Amino acid sequence: MRYSLLAGGKRIRPVLALATAEAVGLEPDRVMPTAAALELIHTYSLIHDDLPAMDDDELRRGQPTCHVRFGEDVAILAGDGLFAEAMRLVLDRQEGDPPHVLAALHEVVDAVGVSGMVGGQYMDVAQSEGSRSDIRHLHELKTGRLIGASVGAVLRLGDVLEPATITYRRFAAEVGVLFQIVDDILDVTGDEEALGKPQGSDERHGKRTYVSVFGLDRARELAAESHRKARAALAETGGRTARLEQITDYILTRQT
Amino acid sequence: MRYSLLAGGKRIRPVLALATAEAVGLEPDRVMPTAAALELIHTYSLIHDDLPAMDDDELRRGQPTCHVRFGEDVAILAGDGLFAEAMRLVLDRQEGDPPHVLAALHEVVDAVGVSGMVGGQYMDVAQSEGSRSDIRHLHELKTGRLIGASVGAVLRLGDVLEPATITYRRFAAEVGVLFQIVDDILDVTGDEEALGKPQGSDERHGKRTYVSVFGLDRARELAAESHRKARAALAETGGRTARLEQITDYILTRQT
Repeated sequence: MRYSLLAGGKRIRPVLALATAEAVGLEPDRVMPTAAALELIHTYSLIHDDLPAMDDDELRRGQPTCHVRFGEDVAILAGDGLFAEAMRLVLDRQEGDPPHVLAALHEVVDAVGVSGMVGGQYMDVAQSEGSRSDIRHLHELKTGRLIGASVGAVLRLGDVLEPATITYRRFAAEVGVLFQIVDDILDVTGDEEALGKPQGSDERHGKRTYVSVFGLDRARELAAESHRKARAALAETGGRTARLEQITDYILTRQT
Repeated sequence: MRYSLLAGGKRIRPVLALATAEAVGLEPDRVMPTAAALELIHTYSLIHDDLPAMDDDELRRGQPTCHVRFGEDVAILAGDGLFAEAMRLVLDRQEGDPPHVLAALHEVVDAVGVSGMVGGQYMDVAQSEGSRSDIRHLHELKTGRLIGASVGAVLRLGDVLEPATITYRRFAAEVGVLFQIVDDILDVTGDEEALGKPQGSDERHGKRTYVSVFGLDRARELAAESHRKARAALAETGGRTARLEQITDYILTRQT
């Protein structure tokens, strides 16, 4: 669990959570347990996705994947354990009114289950067996929902009300799409050493990506479009969104 | 998920939860979402334990295991999905004061993570690589904690206070031990068709069980002792424990 969790990575989800706290006037430290839990959950999903029965990847964040290092049995359990400990972290440490903590957990759990990460990964697995899935919907579930929950859970902790929540959620959805498009582009154009994983792995796995479906040029246009929409949503919130703006720009221009 | 969840089984954990509700004066229906969640979690653990990288079992509840039927990738995700949906079931449907629902979830999550089911399974996996672990501690984590949480979560939902909680928890711990000892005995003496899985599988997997460690006769004595202690704890609670007593007797005398 520590090996995979502490191997680095961009920490996009916790960073989004902390920046959202700042935007809505919460002390970022106050949401730290939930922010950290999101990274535990993300790491759990990476460990399971990398397994031989799934993507069979051997390198992640520049080091051997969990199952290569510790065996498949331990890797499955490390993922299982990270999810349970993520929930426990929130239940043990997250301050706030109980209804708000429950609502935040709800956001997170919705983003993990069959209508989120696990459902998206299932579509991904089933897709390689032939069916053509809507790529945007697949990624919305697999990646977008947890990125959305990084914003959404904090809105719940801060008891932010409509209409502000609506624009923040629109921002979160766009940023999730943006993240995935850029991920797909970097898989084709990125530097292996910087990425910490082999370039071109999506193609080798026969995955449908924004690049394989739309081509590189159109994928870049779609990324720029998502970036514009995400920034526009932020501008509408009326919050202290300087940090969220920076993160949005980073997600577009990142090289890893 | 449905295939494994609805394949039958004894439903010991939800039954314990409902009977505990009755004992402490809660309407059993009121704790149904949490009771059902416990069965989802138990099923998730069975699916992952049966995987080729773990126990590599092909038969469970009288039918092919999840990975045999649907493939290893889908089986891993079915387990992952069941855990997330179990949490969601509680968050969506469990009525009660938010602090009590949070406390019930906490009981459940503690029983799943590294100091519970996942930790116990890790010990089990690591053990087969050579180290000698305390068998009672291993099973306390792997099986006992979730059985304990079936009682404990309901105590939280009912906001039951000390000293009653202490005797109920002592009961739950003993019933967990009793369940495991009888499980180990049935693996040696049981009827394959009734069990729905091959007899003698513990021995083939080189597992340390109550029978392999203490022998069959002593294991039976230990079971009788746990049964006595569990019943004694129930008698001390002062609750309406008729149903819990029946379940305790059933766990000792069951043939499957």
